[in-house]
Amino acid sequence: MHEEPEVAVLRYGHRPGRDDRMTTHVGLTARALGADRVILPDNAGQSKETVEDITGRFGGPFGVELTDALNAVIRNWEGVVVHLTMYGERVQDVEEDVREVHEETPILIVVGGEKVPFEVYEHADYNVGVTNQPHSEVAGLAVFLDRLFDGRELDREWENADRKVIPKATGKKVVEP
Amino acid sequence: MHEEPEVAVLRYGHRPGRDDRMTTHVGLTARALGADRVILPDNAGQSKETVEDITGRFGGPFGVELTDALNAVIRNWEGVVVHLTMYGERVQDVEEDVREVHEETPILIVVGGEKVPFEVYEHADYNVGVTNQPHSEVAGLAVFLDRLFDGRELDREWENADRKVIPKATGKKVVEP
Repeated sequence: MHEEPEVAVLRYGHRPGRDDRMTTHVGLTARALGADRVILPDNAGQSKETVEDITGRFGGPFGVELTDALNAVIRNWEGVVVHLTMYGERVQDVEEDVREVHEETPILIVVGGEKVPFEVYEHADYNVGVTNQPHSEVAGLAVFLDRLFDGRELDREWENADRKVIPKATGKKVVEP
Repeated sequence: MHEEPEVAVLRYGHRPGRDDRMTTHVGLTARALGADRVILPDNAGQSKETVEDITGRFGGPFGVELTDALNAVIRNWEGVVVHLTMYGERVQDVEEDVREVHEETPILIVVGGEKVPFEVYEHADYNVGVTNQPHSEVAGLAVFLDRLFDGRELDREWENADRKVIPKATGKKVVEP
């Protein structure tokens, strides 16, 4: 977010058709919960379009990129790599460390789709489990971002939005900002 | 969770095929992040099976039910109804209230799938937005549960599990408990 070291999310793996919605939700969650950009596998062009469309309508800044070199993105990242996996260390045990590191250093958050090879576990500075239970990569990413930013992401302001939702106890209110 | 008033999650709407993975992820996220049970539309039998299978292997207690009467579940709920929607009040503004209420009262969390009718907004005691941005019902549920339980859900113990993941800095370790 604004004036903090970058947070990027890398979706590791994508099966067109089967993973379209999950990959789109990874991208939208990254955007809504404070990441600066998402990097998707190059066969996830449809998800890229959807996330860009939402950014165009609801505001940014937020970047969406495709890559044909997932491993190179991880290997060449200038900063800290956090890999979210149910096999990793407990988020409640490492989050303070990661928050401290993030004060000075860009973070790449790797979110698995298909089977993640062992070299990702090895390259990661932190393998982190949001619980050590099988659930959802989208849920894990959401909780991790909320804890990384300590809730600050919820107060983020959006630039260049066509529309803005006004919080409401009942019903829907959308305005042009 | 254990010794607290019940928290149930209701998946509102399901399109077989298209929504299978999202509905399954709603169920698995509810289980992993501290809810006591999930209630799914009766055409989501496949998601029910997957969540029950995970509960059988990784432990419980966690309930999965199907219903052909989504609106009746909401109307007849004896407790507080929280509907997660991007149009609702900001989670950071209402979470303290909801946490207090939950000390005494069961909570039903309604998670939209297809278009949610206006009567759900009206019946809900709280319409809550985890951001007022479009993202993912799974992400919204995850952040809401983590905040409702204030992180306690991460320390939950599981009963009758066949296998248990031991948190690890690198690699995977699974044991029979």
